[in-house]
Amino acid sequence: MTEELPTLRLGVLGAGTVGSQVIRLLAEQGEEFAARSGARMHVGAVLVRTPNAPRNTQIAPELLTTDPAEAIDGMDIVIELIGGIEPARTHVLRALNAGISVVTGNKALLAAHGPELYAAADASGADLYYEAAVAGAVPVVYGLRESLAGDRITRVIGIVNGTTNFILDAMATRNLSYEAALKQAQELGFAEADPSADVEGLDAAAKCAILASLAFHTRVGIEDVEVEGITRITAEDMEEAAFSNRTIKLLAIAERRKNDQGVEGVSVRVHPTLIPADSPLASVDGAFNAILVEGENAGRLMFYGQGAGGTPTASAVLSDLVAAAHHRAYGGHAPRESVYAQLPLLESGENLSRFQIRLQVEDRLGVLAEVAGLFASNRVSIQALHQRDDAHDGASVITLTTHRAKEADLRALIAALEDSDSVRSVMSTLHVEGE
Amino acid sequence: MTEELPTLRLGVLGAGTVGSQVIRLLAEQGEEFAARSGARMHVGAVLVRTPNAPRNTQIAPELLTTDPAEAIDGMDIVIELIGGIEPARTHVLRALNAGISVVTGNKALLAAHGPELYAAADASGADLYYEAAVAGAVPVVYGLRESLAGDRITRVIGIVNGTTNFILDAMATRNLSYEAALKQAQELGFAEADPSADVEGLDAAAKCAILASLAFHTRVGIEDVEVEGITRITAEDMEEAAFSNRTIKLLAIAERRKNDQGVEGVSVRVHPTLIPADSPLASVDGAFNAILVEGENAGRLMFYGQGAGGTPTASAVLSDLVAAAHHRAYGGHAPRESVYAQLPLLESGENLSRFQIRLQVEDRLGVLAEVAGLFASNRVSIQALHQRDDAHDGASVITLTTHRAKEADLRALIAALEDSDSVRSVMSTLHVEGE
Repeated sequence: MTEELPTLRLGVLGAGTVGSQVIRLLAEQGEEFAARSGARMHVGAVLVRTPNAPRNTQIAPELLTTDPAEAIDGMDIVIELIGGIEPARTHVLRALNAGISVVTGNKALLAAHGPELYAAADASGADLYYEAAVAGAVPVVYGLRESLAGDRITRVIGIVNGTTNFILDAMATRNLSYEAALKQAQELGFAEADPSADVEGLDAAAKCAILASLAFHTRVGIEDVEVEGITRITAEDMEEAAFSNRTIKLLAIAERRKNDQGVEGVSVRVHPTLIPADSPLASVDGAFNAILVEGENAGRLMFYGQGAGGTPTASAVLSDLVAAAHHRAYGGHAPRESVYAQLPLLESGENLSRFQIRLQVEDRLGVLAEVAGLFASNRVSIQALHQRDDAHDGASVITLTTHRAKEADLRALIAALEDSDSVRSVMSTLHVEGE
Repeated sequence: MTEELPTLRLGVLGAGTVGSQVIRLLAEQGEEFAARSGARMHVGAVLVRTPNAPRNTQIAPELLTTDPAEAIDGMDIVIELIGGIEPARTHVLRALNAGISVVTGNKALLAAHGPELYAAADASGADLYYEAAVAGAVPVVYGLRESLAGDRITRVIGIVNGTTNFILDAMATRNLSYEAALKQAQELGFAEADPSADVEGLDAAAKCAILASLAFHTRVGIEDVEVEGITRITAEDMEEAAFSNRTIKLLAIAERRKNDQGVEGVSVRVHPTLIPADSPLASVDGAFNAILVEGENAGRLMFYGQGAGGTPTASAVLSDLVAAAHHRAYGGHAPRESVYAQLPLLESGENLSRFQIRLQVEDRLGVLAEVAGLFASNRVSIQALHQRDDAHDGASVITLTTHRAKEADLRALIAALEDSDSVRSVMSTLHVEGE
């Protein structure tokens, strides 16, 4: 049967960790991919910067090219694994404009230029697939874009960055400082020499924008995401979290809800968050990713798996490739951009969240009353308060946990606390979720 | 834009818990379903047995019919929610043979007659969707059939029956006997008056067959699944599990592996299993389902969510409906049956598993040596042994855990132990996984 299958030519852009695995697997398991997609696929060209660079996988030298035209023009499907905005954007648009389907793992490109890419695909009838852009092997793009299309999603909340998860995990379980944990992550290859995209939360923000767009049928770009990274998290924060039977995770949160004026909108943010130690997200450690999706009818679903790495990411790329190849050979197409809901983005000040605030206060009578007064006058309601140690140097440290409050009110409260004579310093402010 | 959309007529077979939710949601969220599928859908007829029966949802009386022809013929898509083999099979074939796409939640029908249904769909070009047949709202059918199509799946292991999970959970956390836990499940509506399909493992076996077929591109029917239910599990088993920091779950296990002769094949089974208390499956309680999927490249993925209930199951049905409607209106089709791998089914005796065996033995010198000798002569290797209490009535209870052994050897060992003068009784034998 397989002799009669149509043959598709693939252009691969980039032959790094993921690209070389994709090429290897296509060669080793060609019969299986043909059986699953109904088409024979062979790699026609591989775009690289340095043809002579050492690689993990044997790639036939005649396939390597530095000329984008050779790797794109005339192909049936292009697999983009270069990353970053340019030249990836130019290459992907070149392919889509020519009606060539694209499979990409490029979260930055999607989060910054998704609508432009979708429009190009739509105009030419090409497919645009990007499962590998979010959470590696975990099929959450598929989940939101296709398998949950019958539900109204209310919330997506996830651990989508392995580097920061590794660092926070090391801080939590081995009492390391942030700096020591980062250094270890770098030594083990879990963090890059310049870790800023990860630790500042930008990688997670790009993924959050993609997930929010899919979940809420609304255009959300990376610029819409309120981002806070993990660089401020201290060993003391982690110790305090453990004391209250919680842990700290960097969460991407996308919610659909009504603001005070009754306007339904979307809120998207990435920030370190205190979650209960028995929450399903708390036990997600190391380089694993997990995404909770809440649907009005489905209830709470969780997707969990390896969020990065050559072979897990290659698995996602190859699954997209099977779908794109099947469409190319037999008709049908990938879902188009779905933005019918066009929900407004809520102001970040309108976010509702619980907070934990740690304060160093003067150790004298009346201080607590004054602090509590500032909470009340800023419309932030206290749910719990504790003081762990005795006063020291005329000051005590108190930890307050709030009920759900508006982020704008919280900001005004922090400013008022910082101004107060009773408060020596606001030591930390952390979001609290899942209780 | 929506005015120009094509209109599709739906026939709904069955207006029970799930069917009535599907009809309600289609009416309430029609605009959203139109936007997501690109087609307007309206329910043309609802097949019921008793038109005047009380229902959860208001269904226009003129839609109700007792005539299958009215609910099927001339429809674009038929949603089958009757359950069971007949008359569901006849109705589904009638639709598929006429080129009408079918969305079903009928695990029994799929596991018993899947190939026949697929062949009918293939011949007429209709779609066959059945996400709701396995694990309610959890999109694992989609996951295996589409979003992991780029990987070679090696193992699927899951909790796919909420009733037994509720019962085992109640036994584990509240020290109930099996009988008391079953009674409570029945009172709370988690178990039916005749619970046998659930507690005997048949419901899980049907789902296991479906998952194995999809994962291994091989036909697996319910008759191929080795099944053991939970009716033999005692409060003592549960207590013993807790003592060794484990819990007991009814697992569906589908594996691809080589037997002793080097033949690669598929092993499918459902049985109560001891798993470590910190395993991700151990914390899945109540009516939740969870499925671990292991891919050669993806590594270990987990899908988790509500496995049953009206709205979660309706969510799965409606997602399938969006896909089927899109295909009907714009071309493309659901994945066909994929059986290219045609792996043989391994004999159940060839299964490899670890076991925990509890024995009541004579309390005299030399007994342990004799028991250990029987293990050795049956090629079952002991990994751990303990005796919890002192001897009583001239007998002691010992618990042995084995290394991985062939199930055939285990059976022979049990027979030998039962024959032995040193052994008063084989109190329990349980599979052990995940350590």
